[in-house]
Amino acid sequence: MKVLSYGEVNLRFTPPDYQLLEQTNQLTYQVTGTGVNLLTNLRNFGMQVSLLTTLPDNNIGKTAAAHIRKYGINDDFVSFNGNHIGSYFVELGYGARPTMVTYQNRLASAFCQAEPASYNIEAAVCTSDIIHICGITLLLNEKTRETALKLASCANQMGKPLYFDFNYRPSLNTEHSKAFVKEQYEKILFLADTVFGGILDITELLEIPVDKNRPISEQLQTGIAAFKAKYPVRNYVGTIRGSAVGEHSLSGFIAGEGFKVSREMQVEMLDRIGAGDAYAAGIIYGLSEGWSEERTLDFAVSNAVLAHTITGDVPHTNRKDVEALMNGKQQSLVR
Amino acid sequence: MKVLSYGEVNLRFTPPDYQLLEQTNQLTYQVTGTGVNLLTNLRNFGMQVSLLTTLPDNNIGKTAAAHIRKYGINDDFVSFNGNHIGSYFVELGYGARPTMVTYQNRLASAFCQAEPASYNIEAAVCTSDIIHICGITLLLNEKTRETALKLASCANQMGKPLYFDFNYRPSLNTEHSKAFVKEQYEKILFLADTVFGGILDITELLEIPVDKNRPISEQLQTGIAAFKAKYPVRNYVGTIRGSAVGEHSLSGFIAGEGFKVSREMQVEMLDRIGAGDAYAAGIIYGLSEGWSEERTLDFAVSNAVLAHTITGDVPHTNRKDVEALMNGKQQSLVR
Amino acid sequence: MKVLSYGEVNLRFTPPDYQLLEQTNQLTYQVTGTGVNLLTNLRNFGMQVSLLTTLPDNNIGKTAAAHIRKYGINDDFVSFNGNHIGSYFVELGYGARPTMVTYQNRLASAFCQAEPASYNIEAAVCTSDIIHICGITLLLNEKTRETALKLASCANQMGKPLYFDFNYRPSLNTEHSKAFVKEQYEKILFLADTVFGGILDITELLEIPVDKNRPISEQLQTGIAAFKAKYPVRNYVGTIRGSAVGEHSLSGFIAGEGFKVSREMQVEMLDRIGAGDAYAAGIIYGLSEGWSEERTLDFAVSNAVLAHTITGDVPHTNRKDVEALMNGKQQSLVR
Amino acid sequence: MKVLSYGEVNLRFTPPDYQLLEQTNQLTYQVTGTGVNLLTNLRNFGMQVSLLTTLPDNNIGKTAAAHIRKYGINDDFVSFNGNHIGSYFVELGYGARPTMVTYQNRLASAFCQAEPASYNIEAAVCTSDIIHICGITLLLNEKTRETALKLASCANQMGKPLYFDFNYRPSLNTEHSKAFVKEQYEKILFLADTVFGGILDITELLEIPVDKNRPISEQLQTGIAAFKAKYPVRNYVGTIRGSAVGEHSLSGFIAGEGFKVSREMQVEMLDRIGAGDAYAAGIIYGLSEGWSEERTLDFAVSNAVLAHTITGDVPHTNRKDVEALMNGKQQSLVR
Amino acid sequence: MKVLSYGEVNLRFTPPDYQLLEQTNQLTYQVTGTGVNLLTNLRNFGMQVSLLTTLPDNNIGKTAAAHIRKYGINDDFVSFNGNHIGSYFVELGYGARPTMVTYQNRLASAFCQAEPASYNIEAAVCTSDIIHICGITLLLNEKTRETALKLASCANQMGKPLYFDFNYRPSLNTEHSKAFVKEQYEKILFLADTVFGGILDITELLEIPVDKNRPISEQLQTGIAAFKAKYPVRNYVGTIRGSAVGEHSLSGFIAGEGFKVSREMQVEMLDRIGAGDAYAAGIIYGLSEGWSEERTLDFAVSNAVLAHTITGDVPHTNRKDVEALMNGKQQSLVR
Amino acid sequence: MKVLSYGEVNLRFTPPDYQLLEQTNQLTYQVTGTGVNLLTNLRNFGMQVSLLTTLPDNNIGKTAAAHIRKYGINDDFVSFNGNHIGSYFVELGYGARPTMVTYQNRLASAFCQAEPASYNIEAAVCTSDIIHICGITLLLNEKTRETALKLASCANQMGKPLYFDFNYRPSLNTEHSKAFVKEQYEKILFLADTVFGGILDITELLEIPVDKNRPISEQLQTGIAAFKAKYPVRNYVGTIRGSAVGEHSLSGFIAGEGFKVSREMQVEMLDRIGAGDAYAAGIIYGLSEGWSEERTLDFAVSNAVLAHTITGDVPHTNRKDVEALMNGKQQSLVR
Repeated sequence: MKVLSYGEVNLRFTPPDYQLLEQTNQLTYQVTGTGVNLLTNLRNFGMQVSLLTTLPDNNIGKTAAAHIRKYGINDDFVSFNGNHIGSYFVELGYGARPTMVTYQNRLASAFCQAEPASYNIEAAVCTSDIIHICGITLLLNEKTRETALKLASCANQMGKPLYFDFNYRPSLNTEHSKAFVKEQYEKILFLADTVFGGILDITELLEIPVDKNRPISEQLQTGIAAFKAKYPVRNYVGTIRGSAVGEHSLSGFIAGEGFKVSREMQVEMLDRIGAGDAYAAGIIYGLSEGWSEERTLDFAVSNAVLAHTITGDVPHTNRKDVEALMNGKQQSLVR
Repeated sequence: MKVLSYGEVNLRFTPPDYQLLEQTNQLTYQVTGTGVNLLTNLRNFGMQVSLLTTLPDNNIGKTAAAHIRKYGINDDFVSFNGNHIGSYFVELGYGARPTMVTYQNRLASAFCQAEPASYNIEAAVCTSDIIHICGITLLLNEKTRETALKLASCANQMGKPLYFDFNYRPSLNTEHSKAFVKEQYEKILFLADTVFGGILDITELLEIPVDKNRPISEQLQTGIAAFKAKYPVRNYVGTIRGSAVGEHSLSGFIAGEGFKVSREMQVEMLDRIGAGDAYAAGIIYGLSEGWSEERTLDFAVSNAVLAHTITGDVPHTNRKDVEALMNGKQQSLVR
Repeated sequence: MKVLSYGEVNLRFTPPDYQLLEQTNQLTYQVTGTGVNLLTNLRNFGMQVSLLTTLPDNNIGKTAAAHIRKYGINDDFVSFNGNHIGSYFVELGYGARPTMVTYQNRLASAFCQAEPASYNIEAAVCTSDIIHICGITLLLNEKTRETALKLASCANQMGKPLYFDFNYRPSLNTEHSKAFVKEQYEKILFLADTVFGGILDITELLEIPVDKNRPISEQLQTGIAAFKAKYPVRNYVGTIRGSAVGEHSLSGFIAGEGFKVSREMQVEMLDRIGAGDAYAAGIIYGLSEGWSEERTLDFAVSNAVLAHTITGDVPHTNRKDVEALMNGKQQSLVR
Repeated sequence: MKVLSYGEVNLRFTPPDYQLLEQTNQLTYQVTGTGVNLLTNLRNFGMQVSLLTTLPDNNIGKTAAAHIRKYGINDDFVSFNGNHIGSYFVELGYGARPTMVTYQNRLASAFCQAEPASYNIEAAVCTSDIIHICGITLLLNEKTRETALKLASCANQMGKPLYFDFNYRPSLNTEHSKAFVKEQYEKILFLADTVFGGILDITELLEIPVDKNRPISEQLQTGIAAFKAKYPVRNYVGTIRGSAVGEHSLSGFIAGEGFKVSREMQVEMLDRIGAGDAYAAGIIYGLSEGWSEERTLDFAVSNAVLAHTITGDVPHTNRKDVEALMNGKQQSLVR
Repeated sequence: MKVLSYGEVNLRFTPPDYQLLEQTNQLTYQVTGTGVNLLTNLRNFGMQVSLLTTLPDNNIGKTAAAHIRKYGINDDFVSFNGNHIGSYFVELGYGARPTMVTYQNRLASAFCQAEPASYNIEAAVCTSDIIHICGITLLLNEKTRETALKLASCANQMGKPLYFDFNYRPSLNTEHSKAFVKEQYEKILFLADTVFGGILDITELLEIPVDKNRPISEQLQTGIAAFKAKYPVRNYVGTIRGSAVGEHSLSGFIAGEGFKVSREMQVEMLDRIGAGDAYAAGIIYGLSEGWSEERTLDFAVSNAVLAHTITGDVPHTNRKDVEALMNGKQQSLVR
Repeated sequence: MKVLSYGEVNLRFTPPDYQLLEQTNQLTYQVTGTGVNLLTNLRNFGMQVSLLTTLPDNNIGKTAAAHIRKYGINDDFVSFNGNHIGSYFVELGYGARPTMVTYQNRLASAFCQAEPASYNIEAAVCTSDIIHICGITLLLNEKTRETALKLASCANQMGKPLYFDFNYRPSLNTEHSKAFVKEQYEKILFLADTVFGGILDITELLEIPVDKNRPISEQLQTGIAAFKAKYPVRNYVGTIRGSAVGEHSLSGFIAGEGFKVSREMQVEMLDRIGAGDAYAAGIIYGLSEGWSEERTLDFAVSNAVLAHTITGDVPHTNRKDVEALMNGKQQSLVR
């Protein structure tokens, strides 16, 4: 199975040893992005993966492409143009101190400035079995929106299932009304096979009402029922996070033919970013393997739990380790 | 509000990655000191801050001054003389292994060797609203004692409130009898507005008897009552630490007109040093903002809890993050 | 003497140990900029210095301000707004391999997006003796151009000498005709006291013809004579670089009342960036100290030579070391 | 008391900051090995220690020897020959992610290739009071087996107590039948005074049957009784590990004249390797000091708990810190 | 044009900052090998490249493959088996101190232990235009020899030109007589189109006599003439190194239809390893582009000079930079 | 041959990558000292070596001792007391920028505070063949002076040759008149067999007049003749440094029965400290091997040249590499 993802590539800068940016002049960088994270993880599971993106036409773009290849992602559909890449600084939290993410400008990036016509979308879809689009592309600008919609529409025409990830961040929508954004999302929801989202995407963005006094899983069931009544989406998939003092937990759900929730797993967090993409990768992998929803959910949640124990956004997990955790057979030391 | 602190500047050397000194030839250094820690934190809260100190007249002193400016501390009252700075090595603990601090000589430091007459005390007090003195200066030598007392007396004459921090460490008192040390502390206690201390300062150093079989907060109440009967101090402020197996907690108290104790907060410790200075900064800030004792205590304890999650002695916290924690609104990831 | 500079602040990212970006995931960062470089150097020489700039209103801006203070630069005229800072990657060259600088987007930066009206220009000029403007601000956008011209005009009105640095980089002028750019530069040339520039600024940008077959110093003399006939500038100052196989040399010139060229000094380059700013700092310092042109040139060239031996853009040199080199008394080991 | 250990020296490579090997090009290395770990720890407790081993005759061997001396181990019986040293990569785990150890070839090592005749075994035993052999030497090849047996036999003849550590790893036995391996182990079991082992060594390797449905301590008692009926071993010593979700615990046992189990201690793990060697060191030290079995067990388990908080395999603990933990007097900060 | 290379992949460990192994516990690692170096460089020039090799089937092999992909090398013909990879430590020299390379065992490596039948040689040759074999494979063991000869023979049958690199290192030939080795080399010389070698390969290994009192270029001409009389090789290509006190120089030669020597270029060495592979890459690229021998030589020597300025074995140069140097247009700073 | 040296142990702190202290918060540390440097080098040449010193009785002292053992120095005569160790920061120079050494207080060190009676001088001398004393001990304080003289006198009585190194640094003599210092040096000069010194030691400290207009080697010959007429010293040994623009050179001399000067060697300096100690080690080794003065000089100068290419003060050179350089057989790459 071949997966194609359309998404932005970013640079993440992290000071070492839990230091604040202000405390040191040392950084490590990592090449990241929702598409990058997802595809790396799928490749580790054994799938073939391609990224559709545009990188700067300079040493930074060249380096980003090298890292993408290192992750095992095919770079045949990576274009080079412009001179800017989106970046952000991560100051890793500890205990009560939150992880702090500070974004730099991304609208000037090679990705955001790339003309839709510059991509060979047909060829990319044609050689793939599954198409994935990150919803952030609907928020960025006209060019990324147009590209995303062309890609979705092409996938639809060629009969390739479209996985769409809401990733709706109100803070990125600075130019347009919510109505405008909702309209963009709806265009793609009519083309998607499987959607990754939460309760807020349904209630806040799509304005489907639910009773907020009910338990979260009930809200989800009601909301998704209304959602599915409106949009021809096969699966609505997401996570539920629990958090007591000093403890974090994670479960997942799939609303396919029915509504299934996984067990709740404890989470120890080394790095608080990237687990959502790991969850999505687990779902895509399970579904493409033809696993039951139960097994798929279990695998996806275990994968997300493992992803939290890995430095950086990119989830370098593999099937063997995920299944060991899922089956309660993980060890503390493997030699 | 402008705060002036008289205190020593030190270099802290820390091996990376929880390594012991013996395990690596790598170190990071940090410019620290009770005054430095406190003022940095107050500056982050929005106050104006100045340090009264002496640094070596060489590249080390120049570097220390650069870091002090970086912290946002005014260096107008920093003098340069001599060639030595006090230093210590910190081997960070983990779990059952304690953090180990090894001090190098500090009596030879530019700070300890500075003549009291070399400081322009009047000008420094004159341009400040609040004066802070660290009690370690009473323990070091004749020169630092004389400077501390001149500063206290000048603050008193100009009607500027004096915050005094006991910081009594028997190990630093190697030359004199306890009677002598007690006598020095008493001189300053007659001039102080607010004192930071614990139960041992009252019972061991000042020799005020309390019943050690009573709970700690009762001991504090009785002891402080006797303390206040003797010295004209307005507030006696401090922390109470609780520690079960593998768990640490922190609460604070203010004995002002009454005796108030804050709630007890759980502590996760990345770095075990500097939280006391963060607590003091929280108290000074709350009182100078005219907050209630309850709010001040809550803020100070939350600040100390956050300080434990930051590498190094210097508490780089800000009001927004402290209040988020204090109000139970802290997140694990901010973007 | 107080110097005020208007200029952009950038982040420079450098891989360690002469590695290429592609070879490692480690970086060090440094806070730089023509104004930052110049002012840090002037502060090291003993002058008081202030920066007029805008930084992002987030942890990156806060960190940049901390570094600026560390350099000894007054941050009273630093504003905080927006969320982006210009950045570039430096892959340090070695031998025949050039140092490679890759810029990221700077037009989206807090500095470029700052409204001219957001600066308190009068207050800034009023409290300064010398004003410095970097020509890059004329190339960036309408806002930086307007701010630069308002500042120049204000300096003129208050009788404060204006030092203007051409820094003309054709690559930064992507939107406008050269005629447009020339027009902007001319506006400021009519207000400047001292201008830093080279032969290309005169021949290419200002289109003053010289005979390119003549030696460079002759070209400069002819060109500058025509330049001064047109613009009421007191001094035209710059450097001449010589380069044989494996060897680099540097000399400087001042075209004030006459035309003076310094001796030629050998250069060993650890870091190939920032020496031009060090040269300018040397000139400003010498002139403000009332030194002869000869001594000023000698000092400025020696300072630039030393700056080449320091990692990063910022020239951390001091008067004592520059004069030791200038007087042939430098040692290889000082203890 | 002088302890001699025969064992392999290895290089351990560890990426920093919990990174995976794939994520960075940075490593730290450490010189390790069961004998190295044990002897370093015993030296820290005040014993004199010597290593009997062979290192490569090149810069790697020279460096390994330098580290061994740094640990305080006498290198008089270290030979130099060949050019290879066994090595392994450790990717440190976190939370649910296991620590992953990847071994490189060790059969080609200078140690494995060293001729038994190349060691001066009599001299080494003669100058020692206690002999220690790591069971891995029985698994490696004919040369290490022969050396180990010669050493054991020599110890026996000179009346020096032999401590033997099973360390049986089926994965290292790739060439021979289990029967062959059992035969080798038995040869040494007839010569040993004290044996370090677990339940699997008894049931799997030596094929002594126990009822696996009984609690582990009962299994041990029954199994060891049968073991002791067959082999003339004075003490059989080992640890019992408990593991609930997110929690680890450790206790120890000695089957000497009776069967004693220590209390169970909680474990926080910074580095998951080397604690077994620390436990063995604690036992050897306690027995050689003539302590009771209770005190010896308590000391050994506390030592192993501390060893888990130290980066790397080598347990840099000392008696004072172990006893503080053992007596519940450990602090979180020592200054 | 597609290039296939058969060769070993190694790990190189280097201490930072010119330190000796004994001085620090820090290392960087790099994935290297003659084939890796050559193919990376050719890919940078724009060619398509594949590596035929075997890596360990563990995290080390997985990491090595990731780096190979990062370099832009196709990993379709990379197999995974065994658990060992050859490695060496490089202590970088400075001035009069040589760079010291210490090899670890390579015969136990996955590469050396790979069965010839495990490679799909026909498929690999079939999809390539040029085949490259490193002579070290003839020295290692029976398996690598057989694989190399099968590959050469297959290339020959399919009419794909074979580039063969002598790389004869007497120290690697520990088992066999020189006669045996000569015999192996001769088998391949009868199949090769272009051979990389020096004068010693001709005189020492192949025992073709030349007058050693003549200048080196004359020795080469005579020796190669005899060589070509014997073996049906089209081109014999190599370098000539000159070395005065503190200065190094490099020139290249091609003995094709005639005998051409390039100009001599000065060399500044940051890293003394890998330039030979860069030279070979330059030759292969020039010949495959159909350039004249003069231009090809000039390009290859310039490329080798640049490779000396890059940390590590792998020559990350590109055509633009090589041609800038070759045409005397290199700059010291590119922005 | 066994060498005993009495000398101070220091910590050297060095920022990485030629950075200034002000530019980074990273340091490496190294354990150094004239005695440490000399003995490490002699051990590398094959001699047995012991250090007579006192280290702090804490983790710093324990770490320093570990490094000393790592260097191969016997620590039987190392005592532990006090809590301070002398330290200094080294900012590595480049080109025209000098290496800057900034010392911290050393008079408070465990070494300077050690009572002469605390050393077992007889035992130390008794088990050694050669005694070495660093002249800095005569400058520090009464305790180190007394220890040095007791040691010298004991060596004399036991007939062990005393090597004395002037190392006179006027800056360290802050308390006493030069007459006092001269008197101390003279006491030891009457006991020394071989003295390391320069022309200034003779003319400035000992006030022996020479004609400063004569070439340096002539000054040395005249001055040493007068020196030897006064003090019963067998050899007076030292170096002559030449320095043109951008070039350094080194030669050595021995004034034994005659006056011999070595050839002049070019020096490339990675680290400008420690070469004097390497020179002394070369001389001691050569003389103790019974080499001719010519060979000894050649070896010592070559050793010093190599020491300049090694990071840190400690000269990790060995006989093979020194002789390769000395015989013009050094390579740029050894594998």
